[in-house]
Formats: sequence, C-alpha cells, structure tokens
Amino acid sequence: MSEAGIDAGLIEKHNESRMEALRRDYEALGEQLDRRGIAIDAIKEKVAAFGVAIPSWGVGTGGTRFARFPGPGEPRDIFDKLADCAVIQSLTRATPTVSLHIPWDKADPALLREAAQRLGLGFDAMNSNTFQDHPGDRYSYKFGSLSHTDAATRRQAIEHNIECIEIGKAIGSRALTVWIGDGSNFPGQSNFTKAFERYLDSMRAIYAALPDDWRIFTEHKLYEPAFYSTVVQDWGTNYIIAQELGPKAFCLVDLGHHAPTVNIEMIVARLIQYGKLGGFHFNDSKYGDDDLDSGSIDPYRLFLVFNELVDAEKRGAAGFNPAHMLDQSHNVTDPIESLMVSATEVARAYAQALLVDRNALEAYQESNDALMATLTLKAAFRTDVEPILAMARVEKGGAADPVAAFRESGYRRKVAEERPAVAGGGGGIV
Amino acid sequence: MSEAGIDAGLIEKHNESRMEALRRDYEALGEQLDRRGIAIDAIKEKVAAFGVAIPSWGVGTGGTRFARFPGPGEPRDIFDKLADCAVIQSLTRATPTVSLHIPWDKADPALLREAAQRLGLGFDAMNSNTFQDHPGDRYSYKFGSLSHTDAATRRQAIEHNIECIEIGKAIGSRALTVWIGDGSNFPGQSNFTKAFERYLDSMRAIYAALPDDWRIFTEHKLYEPAFYSTVVQDWGTNYIIAQELGPKAFCLVDLGHHAPTVNIEMIVARLIQYGKLGGFHFNDSKYGDDDLDSGSIDPYRLFLVFNELVDAEKRGAAGFNPAHMLDQSHNVTDPIESLMVSATEVARAYAQALLVDRNALEAYQESNDALMATLTLKAAFRTDVEPILAMARVEKGGAADPVAAFRESGYRRKVAEERPAVAGGGGGIV
Amino acid sequence: MSEAGIDAGLIEKHNESRMEALRRDYEALGEQLDRRGIAIDAIKEKVAAFGVAIPSWGVGTGGTRFARFPGPGEPRDIFDKLADCAVIQSLTRATPTVSLHIPWDKADPALLREAAQRLGLGFDAMNSNTFQDHPGDRYSYKFGSLSHTDAATRRQAIEHNIECIEIGKAIGSRALTVWIGDGSNFPGQSNFTKAFERYLDSMRAIYAALPDDWRIFTEHKLYEPAFYSTVVQDWGTNYIIAQELGPKAFCLVDLGHHAPTVNIEMIVARLIQYGKLGGFHFNDSKYGDDDLDSGSIDPYRLFLVFNELVDAEKRGAAGFNPAHMLDQSHNVTDPIESLMVSATEVARAYAQALLVDRNALEAYQESNDALMATLTLKAAFRTDVEPILAMARVEKGGAADPVAAFRESGYRRKVAEERPAVAGGGGGIV
Amino acid sequence: MSEAGIDAGLIEKHNESRMEALRRDYEALGEQLDRRGIAIDAIKEKVAAFGVAIPSWGVGTGGTRFARFPGPGEPRDIFDKLADCAVIQSLTRATPTVSLHIPWDKADPALLREAAQRLGLGFDAMNSNTFQDHPGDRYSYKFGSLSHTDAATRRQAIEHNIECIEIGKAIGSRALTVWIGDGSNFPGQSNFTKAFERYLDSMRAIYAALPDDWRIFTEHKLYEPAFYSTVVQDWGTNYIIAQELGPKAFCLVDLGHHAPTVNIEMIVARLIQYGKLGGFHFNDSKYGDDDLDSGSIDPYRLFLVFNELVDAEKRGAAGFNPAHMLDQSHNVTDPIESLMVSATEVARAYAQALLVDRNALEAYQESNDALMATLTLKAAFRTDVEPILAMARVEKGGAADPVAAFRESGYRRKVAEERPAVAGGGGGIV
Repeated sequence: MSEAGIDAGLIEKHNESRMEALRRDYEALGEQLDRRGIAIDAIKEKVAAFGVAIPSWGVGTGGTRFARFPGPGEPRDIFDKLADCAVIQSLTRATPTVSLHIPWDKADPALLREAAQRLGLGFDAMNSNTFQDHPGDRYSYKFGSLSHTDAATRRQAIEHNIECIEIGKAIGSRALTVWIGDGSNFPGQSNFTKAFERYLDSMRAIYAALPDDWRIFTEHKLYEPAFYSTVVQDWGTNYIIAQELGPKAFCLVDLGHHAPTVNIEMIVARLIQYGKLGGFHFNDSKYGDDDLDSGSIDPYRLFLVFNELVDAEKRGAAGFNPAHMLDQSHNVTDPIESLMVSATEVARAYAQALLVDRNALEAYQESNDALMATLTLKAAFRTDVEPILAMARVEKGGAADPVAAFRESGYRRKVAEERPAVAGGGGGIV
Repeated sequence: MSEAGIDAGLIEKHNESRMEALRRDYEALGEQLDRRGIAIDAIKEKVAAFGVAIPSWGVGTGGTRFARFPGPGEPRDIFDKLADCAVIQSLTRATPTVSLHIPWDKADPALLREAAQRLGLGFDAMNSNTFQDHPGDRYSYKFGSLSHTDAATRRQAIEHNIECIEIGKAIGSRALTVWIGDGSNFPGQSNFTKAFERYLDSMRAIYAALPDDWRIFTEHKLYEPAFYSTVVQDWGTNYIIAQELGPKAFCLVDLGHHAPTVNIEMIVARLIQYGKLGGFHFNDSKYGDDDLDSGSIDPYRLFLVFNELVDAEKRGAAGFNPAHMLDQSHNVTDPIESLMVSATEVARAYAQALLVDRNALEAYQESNDALMATLTLKAAFRTDVEPILAMARVEKGGAADPVAAFRESGYRRKVAEERPAVAGGGGGIV
Repeated sequence: MSEAGIDAGLIEKHNESRMEALRRDYEALGEQLDRRGIAIDAIKEKVAAFGVAIPSWGVGTGGTRFARFPGPGEPRDIFDKLADCAVIQSLTRATPTVSLHIPWDKADPALLREAAQRLGLGFDAMNSNTFQDHPGDRYSYKFGSLSHTDAATRRQAIEHNIECIEIGKAIGSRALTVWIGDGSNFPGQSNFTKAFERYLDSMRAIYAALPDDWRIFTEHKLYEPAFYSTVVQDWGTNYIIAQELGPKAFCLVDLGHHAPTVNIEMIVARLIQYGKLGGFHFNDSKYGDDDLDSGSIDPYRLFLVFNELVDAEKRGAAGFNPAHMLDQSHNVTDPIESLMVSATEVARAYAQALLVDRNALEAYQESNDALMATLTLKAAFRTDVEPILAMARVEKGGAADPVAAFRESGYRRKVAEERPAVAGGGGGIV
Repeated sequence: MSEAGIDAGLIEKHNESRMEALRRDYEALGEQLDRRGIAIDAIKEKVAAFGVAIPSWGVGTGGTRFARFPGPGEPRDIFDKLADCAVIQSLTRATPTVSLHIPWDKADPALLREAAQRLGLGFDAMNSNTFQDHPGDRYSYKFGSLSHTDAATRRQAIEHNIECIEIGKAIGSRALTVWIGDGSNFPGQSNFTKAFERYLDSMRAIYAALPDDWRIFTEHKLYEPAFYSTVVQDWGTNYIIAQELGPKAFCLVDLGHHAPTVNIEMIVARLIQYGKLGGFHFNDSKYGDDDLDSGSIDPYRLFLVFNELVDAEKRGAAGFNPAHMLDQSHNVTDPIESLMVSATEVARAYAQALLVDRNALEAYQESNDALMATLTLKAAFRTDVEPILAMARVEKGGAADPVAAFRESGYRRKVAEERPAVAGGGGGIV
C-alpha cells in the first residue's frame, strides 16, 4: 500500500474479476435508459465530476453521551486522519477534499499542505469549535459563545473563528462553517432577542475578517446540546443571519437538524430561490440529529433533496453553488467504510436525480397531474444506477466495490498495529 | 335575556353569591403580590383592557374529516353567530370583536354593522377562503388557489380576497388574514419555487388593493389539508412573504401550525424582533393542528408566548401591535362555553406574564443563573390569578363564573328551540 | 369495455407495443439476479400470487375537514364501487378482493355476491363504522361508541358490529375489522381505565358473535378524530386487546397510525413474534394519518415492513397469516389510478424483500457487521424489480402499464357520463 | 455545617424571616380550600409523607455528546455524592433515599451503609450499567449487552446485574432497575425477534437471582444511544417483558423516553390497570430524552401523570406501589439546586393532584361534560400549593426556600475547596 491510500495494483486486481458483470449491467442499463431518451455516458460524466468533502472528525469512531466504543486503528491526529481520507478517496474517487475542525486538527499549515498534496487531497471548509472548552482558553462556553452575555467570552469566540480563517487561508480553504451550540435549557434562562443580537454582532466581526473570495456558512439546528432553545434554531433564523451579514454569507443545511416531519427539500428550494443555499452536511436520521450514514434510513428523502439541486442546476438558479460535505457519527461501523458507502449514496441520489424527465415533470406539474408527476420522480429513483456509479469510479481509478477492496487491502489491520488502542469513554454523562 | 347577550340582571344575581369569596381571594392575593412588589390593581387594569377576537365560525360545532356531531342550537347564519358572540362578550367582557369568514358570513354590510352595533360588538380581521370551492365559482381550488398553475384560477382567488377587503371596509374591519391550503400531496406534484413565485405575485395584487390603514396577515402552517408540502409552510417562508410585500404585511402565528417539538415562543420573539409579528390564532394542540381550547393541553407554553409579548410591550419593541384571535374547533363542547373559557385562559396567560419580575429575570439572564431565571418565570406562572381575572370581569359587568352563568341563563336551550336541529355530517372522507 | 373491468382486447393491444422492451429488461434483470444466486422466475411466481384488498371507500375521492373536491364519475353506491374495483383488478391482477364498510356499503347480500362473482371479485374483511352517526340510529357516537359511558349506546355499537358479521357471513367474508374513534379532546374528559374496561366488555360481546373460522382485527391509532387521548392508541394497547379477547383476535397495523419517528417495522416484528399480527392497512404519510398513496413518501420504510414479513414467512413463524389491504384517501388523484399504483408499490416492496440474501444477512447480524447487513438490505431494495412486476401482471392478463392502459380505456370518461356530478363539500369544519 | 447536610441552625434562621408570610399564605389558601371542601392540613400530611429518590449520578454535572462543563465541587466518589444528597434531603425533607449506579458507585457495602446511616439516607433501587464498557471487563458492549449475539457477552452482562443485586442486598436496597442501550443504528443490523428473545433469556437469568422481596424494573426508551432500533423501545415491549418474567417484574416509566406527542399519562394508566407500573424516572423534555429538570418544560403534563397516580391510590388499584426517582442531567445548573427544585416540582404535582374534586370529575366524565371535567382538573392545577409544600417542609425541619438556604449555607463553595476542579470533557464525539 502506498502512502497515498490504497495501492493501485490492489484496486486493479479487485476490479478485474468484477468488470465483466459490471459491463453487462452497464450495457443493459444503457439500453434501457436509451429507450427513455437518456444517454448513460452523459450521466456517468456528471457523476464522475461529483465530489463530497470528508469531515476530518468522521474518520474516528463517534459516540453518544452514554458511551463511545472506539475501534482498532483510531487516528491519533490530523495526519492519521488525512491518511484515512486518502484511502476513501483512492477507492471511491468521489471525496477529493477534507474539511478540518479547529482546534482538533491544529497543526503546522505547511505540514498540512504538504501532507494533503502528497495524498492527493484538497481542503474544504474550515470548522470552528466554540461548543467545547479548549485547554488554555480563559473563558468557558458553558453558557454560550458567540451569543454569550459576557463580551470577553464573545471576543474569545470571535477570535477563535478568525484564527480558523487564518489557518484556512494558509492551507487553501475558501470557506468557514460556523455551528454553535449556544442556547438554553430552561425557559427564561436566555433572552431570545438579546442573545440573537449578540450573536449577530459577533458574526459581523467574523464576517469582517473574511477574505473577498471566501464564503461563510452558518448552520441551524433545532436542539442539542441546548434542550429548550437554540440561538440558530431553524432555517428562518439562518436566512435572517445570511441576509444581515451580506453577500458572502450562506445557509448550511444539515439533514438531521430539523424538527420531526419537516419537509427538508422544500427548505432547500426556498434557500436556493433566495440565493442563500451554502451547502450541506449530509447524513441520515430517524429521531433527532442521529448522524447516521447518508441514505441509510430514508434514501428517497436524499433523492428529493438532489431533485431540487439538479432542478436548480438545470435552470441556472442565480448564485447556485452548494458545498457538499458528509457529517456523520460512526458509532458501530468502521468509519472509513461508512464514509465510502455514504459518499456513494450521495452520488447515487445525484445520479438518480439526473435521470428525472424534467420536461415531462414540468408538464405534469402544469396540468396538475399529481400521479404522473410523482411517478416521474419514482421512475428515476427506482432505476438501479449502481452500474453508472461503479463505472465512473473504476474509470477514475477507484474500486468497483470500495468496501470489499478496503477489506482486501488489510488497511485497518495495518493501522491498528501502528496506532495505539484507545480506551472507550463514558460520554458526557459521567 | 336581552337581545345583546345575557341579561344584566341575571349576571348580577349570579355574581352576588360569589362576591364575598372573590373579594377575600382578591385581597389575599393582593397582599401576597404586594409582598412581591406588585400592585394587584394595576394588573387588574391591564387585564381589563385586554381583549381577544372571536372567530365567527367558532360558535358552531366543529368536526373532523371523519365526522361532525352538531349540538343543539347551531347558528344558522352570521346573525345567529353574532348573537352567540354577544353572549360570550356579555359574560366575559374580554371578547369585544368578531372576525368574519367570507363567503360563510356574507351578508348586507349595513345589516352587519347594525347588528354588531346593537350587540355591542366590533369587527376584527376579515378572513378569506380559497381552501374550499364556492358555489357559483367558475374555477376549483382542488389544486390550489393563489399559487395555482392556472392564471384564471389565481385571478379568481385574488378577486375573492379583494372582495373580502371591500366587505371589511364597509363594516369597519382594518385587516385581512390570508390562509390558504395550497400545497401538494405527492413529491413532484408541485414545483416549490414556481408555486411560491405565483403565490407572491397573487399576494402582491391583493396587497395593492389594501387601504393605507389596513394590515394584511399571512398565516403559515406545516401541513393539512396538503400532506406532502404546503406553500406557506413555516415562519421562515411567512417572514419572506411579509418582507416581499411591504410594511403593511405581517405574519400571523397559529399555535397549532408548527412541527412537533418546535419552540413557538422563540418564533414569536424573532418575528417581534424583525417587526413582523401580526398576531395570533390562539388554540392548543397535542399532535397536529388539533384546534383544541386555548391552554387546555399545555398552559405553560401559552404563558411563555405571553412572556414574550409582555417583554416586547415593556421594552417598547418597534411596531409591536399584535392582533389576538381565538381559532379553535369545538367538537365535543358547547362552543360558547369553550370560547368563554378560552378567552379567559388567554387573559390568564397575559396576567401571569405581567407578574414576571423582569428586573430580576434580566439580572439572572445576564449572570447565567439559569435556575433562578426559570424560577422567576415559574413564580409568575404558578400564581393563581383567577381572582384578578374574575374581578376584572365582574367590574366590567361580566360574570364571576361565565360558564355557570351561561348555564343558568338557559340560552342554549332557548336557541335550540329557535334554531332547527342540524344533522351530523360524515366529514370529508365520504 | 366488458362489465368486468377493462376489455381484454384493449389490454392486449396495450401490452403488445411494450412487450419487447419488457422482455429485454426482464432478461437483463434475470441475468443479474442469476449472478446473485436468485431465480427470477421464482420471484415472479411469488409476486403473481400476491394480492392486496381494495377498500370500497377508496374508489371515491377523499377529503379533509377543510374540503373535499370530488372528481368526475364518483361511484354512487357499492355496485359502482365494485365496478371500479373490477377495473383495478383487471389491469393489475393484484387486487382480487374488496373490503366493505357498513353502513356505507349496505345492500342485499345476494346482489352483492352476484355482482362480485360477475366481476371476478371476492370479499375481504368487513369494516364497521361507529365513528359516525347513522341516520335512524337512536344514540349518537359523539362521545364514543364501544367505550361510551352509556350502556345503551355501547349496545347499539355492539349490535352494529354483529350486523357487520352477519352481512359478512352472507357474502363470504371471514374477518371483521374494528376501528373506533373513541377517545377524548380534553384532559379529564375521559377516565382512561374505565373507558378501556368498557371497550373490552363491548369487544367481548362482539367476539362472542364471531364464527369459528373468522378473525377479528382491532386497529390502533394515536390520534384523530380524538385529539387528546384515544382508547386504542398504540400497539401496546392493541396487543392487550388481542390477548384479552382470545385466539381469533389480532392486531391490525395501519402504517399512518403511529407517533412521529416510531419504528413501525419493529412493531410488526413484535406482533409476529407474539402471534398477533392480523394484517395491514397500507398507505404512506409524512406528518400524521395522511393516508397518502402507499410508498409515495418513504418507500424504504414500506420495504422494511415487507422485510419483516418475508422473514417471518421464510422462518415459518407460528400463526403468521397477515391480511393486506390498502387504506388511503385520494384527494387529488383519480382514485382508480392511485389504487392501481399503490397495489403495485406494495407488491414492489414484497418483491424487493424477496431478493434479500437472508443467509448473508443472518451471518452479518451474528457477527455484528452492521455495514454489510444494511448493504444486504439495500442491495435488494435498489434492485429495479419493475420487470418482474410487469411480467407477472401481463402473464395474468393485466396491463404492462396499468395507468396508461386505464387512460387509454376511457373508463373514467364513460362513468362520468353515467354517474351524476357530485358537489364539493366543506369537510367537517362548517 | 454538620456532616449530615446543612446545619439545622442555619435552616432555622433562614426560616425565621419567612414564617410570617408563609403562615399568612397558608391560612389564606386554607380558607379558600375549605370553601372548596378540602382540608389543607390533610393535604399537607400527604405531601409531608411523599418522597422521591435521588439518583447518585444526578449530583454531578451532566453533559452531552458535544461537551460537558463541570462546575465547582464535583463529587469525587459515592461518598461525596451521598454528602450532596444529604444536603438535598436536609433542605427539602422530600428525598430520603439514594439510588446507586454500578460500577460508578462501587464501594465497600459496609462503608456505604455506615455513611448512609450517618447522613440519614436510605438506598433505593440499584441500577446496573451495560451501556458502557467497564475497565477490566473481557467483553465489550459496543454491539449490545443482554441481547448481544455472543453468549459470553450476554453472560458477562447477566453477571453484572446479579452483582448489582448482591450489592443491593448488602446495603438494604429492594429493587433492581435495568436499562440497556441495546439496539441498532442501521436497518438490518439486528434481527428484532432474535435480539428480543436473547434479551428475555438474559432477563430470566437475572430474574432468577432476585430475592423474594425484591422487584425488578425494566425501562423502555424509544432511541438513544441506538438510533434506528432499540430492543426495549416502548411500553408495549416493556409490558411483554414484565408479563414474561413474572410477578416481581414491573415497567419503569421515564418521562423523556417516548416518541414526540405521545400521551404518557395514558401509558401510566394502562400499566396501572394491568398491575405492571413499577415506577418513574422523573424529568422533563421538549425534544427527545432531554433530561431537563422535572416540571420545567410542561408542568401540566407532570400534573396529569400524578392525576393518574392519585386516582389509582384513591380507588385502591391492585398492586399499585410505584417507585419515584428523579433522573435528570444537570448541564447548566448546580446539580444540588436542580435536584431540590425538581423534588419540589414532583411534590407540587402530587399536591395539585390531591386537590382534584374526584367526585365531581367522575360525574362530569359519566355525563360527558368535557368542559367541566377538564376545568375540574385545571382548578386543582392552577391552585398555588406553594404554601402547602413549604409548610410541610418547614415542619419537617427543612427550609422554606431550599435554594436560597443552600446559597446562604456556602456548601458549594466549601466543597469546591475540598474537591479538586474537574476538566471539561469533549463528550462522546471526539
């Protein structure tokens, strides 16, 4: 195995035995799509050009407030994390960039750039962290950060964000994502209006430090870690923030950050319409912010989100340029495997959305033929696009079956030997 | 019984036997509040000045899609409804106005004014109806109204709203409330973006017809009657609408129109902060838009909403002037009784919110003393303000116990004799 | 068009032009499945043997409490409904039976049997109705039926259910489904314990009237039409009912009758495990009991339910014999089209579940390989089984594309001429 | 300050200045209740006899998966925790017992008994922990404990529970509470049926080790830490467990462990009805298992739960003997203060429920007078019972205002000096 991910020879050998079946499936699908007026190669090209960023923290095993059960070979630092990300990219060819979280990933920027270059990776949005206290910090974020009642605490949080921008500038990032846990656990604990004013003031200070070619993404979330109110609780508040800050400010949509039953694809459509969709944190969820693997619980919902994205792309919506990132917690799987599968699921939703017959759909919508309109979406969704995804991957040097190839590679076993075992933690409750 | 509600003699007699106990309770509470630095009479004055509008449709028995079980003496027309509203007002002295729904309440404006004057009632916001087809209308709203794909259907819906304004002008209303059922039942049925553009275009036409001294209230709702998407689905979209339309446009908050677990008082705070809170449709709910009696399920939530309102009032929030209306479906109670109790519950929440020690609260918030902050709210909430409500009512000529007085009056029995019995309906499902 | 549904010649002609493509898709899929160790013809046989009952009320346009917008050619009575059901069956060959609702479908049993026989239909479970008042009934169900505080009202409801059994016996049904709306809208309105005791007493009386070879299905629902509490609110209560009544009593699962986020497939598994799964009312939902078309919102959830059913079938779970019925409200589509598509979606989920590699799945489960376990399900779910469904349909005399064939047939136009137009209704709220 | 909590002299002094106002409020309320036919002293006696157990882990600051922000004076071990519990008891006189969590609270039983005796505390139910890995354990609970696919892991979990019983026997406990995190994060990861069978087998082994005079409580929870399925997911499954195990097995209800919108008081009623209510973990929540302070979000819901309990008590429901325990996560407050307030809130709900006029309520229920029935509950709920709670407390030697007295005592400052500061943690995500 090369330093940069998985050895090409291993991938080649892996693919060899699978290519015949893949070609037959690709051809059969191509013929079917041809009958539907779709050129399979054009879809494949688009899929091949599609990428989603890996969050650096995603390659470690996640946990809950009750416990964390680490696996073998947990990454020790950002360089281990980058090595793991390179494996994901070498096998899937769909995850060319990594998104860093500061201070977790703090390191000499020159070394970061060097490592990324060597591994064939780029850097996506920077992520600040003011939902935890950092060793050495003077002020605690127990009662908030950017919206804290205390000006010095806010200042510390602002400076941390500006530091993230500085690091990002040094390593070639072009965006800052701000998610805060600020909120309250009790009615009355916080004055909603003042807290939001303080938050906006802090964000204006950060925005002022943003380079011209950067974007800033704010992320809303209904609850957790605050359990009564959250300062940036929903897309309505998030939209106001982006409006207040200015043209470089956009809203980030994490699929798990909404109230039960909310129609997320519609929120996506509204943000596109008003030029404020910044991008996504992809994951899936059944109950709350479960941070499960993308598409693992409700794959049709993921497709419906991409249906909006492809629609916006096709109609050339003004300012439409969303960032794609996975943001998941891998508690019971190998994080590398989960991230590979999830990157594929996101690409799958994109491929399916590309198959929607948009002329037919529009006609059905105009004539209120609800049944045929929805069947038009379903026809695209139920098409098994696996051959397209696999072919795009293989042609770019990736593996026909990334999980199988990963297991064949012995990578996890090898890093488990190199990296010391990590003890399980008790989560936040003790 | 006089034409205008309940005979004053009956009320006087009703109150007589209750006054001694009321006075003792009022005094004991006054003494306790005095110790807390609160003048009970000042609270009583504010409560006495507080009013909530009755929706004309609320005095009839409501139903579900499964069935409707009418009670005795169902009002036959708007004049019967006004008579019932007068009863509510004469007993509670807290419901001085009625909100009409067109075309249900269509009648000669002169007669409407005359009846209202005679009964001592005023007219609150007008309500248009494009969620049902009206006999004689050329176009159906089956697939939408203000956002319909067909321009002629939209035009019809616009004209209906303008007609509502015209009627309102003739009877002294000063606001139009627009709630539509437009949305979709299937993914793909509707293009979210185009539908919203069409909606905004239609609303702009209605807004253009609005007199200078009128306000227009738009109402969001997550779902029902549309079960996949709704055009005005949440406060985020509602806020955009109010922004797009202009300074006379405001957002109406119906307490039952949100996703499960959403923090409604925070939405109220945001709308106040951005000068766009138009008012309320008060009711309570446990599951969806259950339209239960105000305060019957979660009285603390109602209090927390009023906590925001009183806070805004005290700090003199710019443009703060919310309209208050009940909007409930009385399926198993006598509508008049439910409306009287609900008006009282809304006033109760207001009175409790007035008791909050706001200086203490602010200090606790500033110092992040979460426990004492929330206990400050709780101290106000758990105060039994019944003596204040009853005293305010009695002093204005109302009944110490409106429900008991209503039952003593025999009003329901009397109208049941005058108004023909109504057969139960099967709801929408058959 | 023949009396029994759609003319065979029309279907034949419809299929002709589609057969070549269908055969190619079927072959390509067959080859792919063969590689996966699955014989496509065996799957097709199972799909061909699968049926789902049509609810008689489903062929009419549904509505909400706000409005109902009828379409052309609404069925006037049970005989029109049976004719519509025959169309569905002739085109899909997957809906051989009809489920009646009394008193809506009351008619001379001999005529019912004759009509069904002529149309090639059978009768599924009988459905009683005590959530509405029936003309001529002495007592109202406004405050409950089988759990009413008044013994005479309960008796009336019991007798109605017994009458349903009698009608069912006369027409060859073998099951009674009991869904009641009993519950409360206010805390305190009902004593939970006494209401449940009364309900059980009533059900015991009905159970006593059940023939030996019949089953009785009770259906739980969290809320609506009652909005604070419902007597049979969830599967826990439903399970107790089935236990209390005896071996002929089973629980019916309506997919839309659960609290938000609840894991329904797990409830299905539990009921199977304890021998009490009676069957299903299939539909889909996003918010509450939306009664949308099966598989239209979350097709993966429907698949996961069938994954449990196929698992139980394969392992020979004791007493496993669930009844399948659609139960949907078609508010904006042609009911016949929606029912055809929904029957297909249910069969699709079944076909996909049959493709699950259960040996592999079990091995992954035993070794806690969560990722490969879930990918094993996904591999089955994402397989496009349309060729299997279509081939099974065509071979049984149905249409390759039932909706297209239906539109080609002109059936709706024809019945619209025969059946008088129906005026829209205002739902339950006015 | 004495070893056992707060110095009596300090409490006496604290109370002195408050007694006059308290006596006046108590008298005024007594007079009002007398008019309602209620003897205030009888209520006070019942409140005085009411107690709720403190969970040992509750006196430490809690956290989320994102972070934990400890406060000053965090308890270092079970003896520090007992000392803190003694403070709570000395000030509130409503928390006579402590519930231990093993292995967190493992210590020499003789020392535990001695410490408890000295502090005037008893021991409530024992709590086992198989949702975390314990240092020294051979097998990991990453993929489950009592339901694990591996027999040796299950055996280890069983033995841990039996050890908890042994410890409990040594210190005078009489119950074991079993909550497990077992479940799955992915569809297909777990076979629902087999997992439940394994769970039941394990529980039978634990049940077999239960002394004759013990009870075993199983606790259901919809989700978290498992985010797709949970083995003991709801009361339906919990009830089956209690049935399967036998007469010493009961269901524990944690108020935060249900799906959104679920009617919890109804579940409580059903479990009482079938003799299987074991007790409660009290807390409050808005979104999920938020573990907020009891009564802080929805105090009326807590009252409605107690309404069922008092109803069962009054009617002498068979086998009714529920255990009461707080189970909360104090993330932003002083845990001692939160626990004191929460114990008071639970007692408040009990006191309010005692005020319900049950004869009147029953009559309204029988006659379906929904409005008066619910007003009967509301009349009890809105009564400010603070004077009763305070008087009961003071008469037993507690503080009129426990939080104020605690702050006056300087206890937190003192233990902060004795106990070393704890660093904040990152929760489970890093």
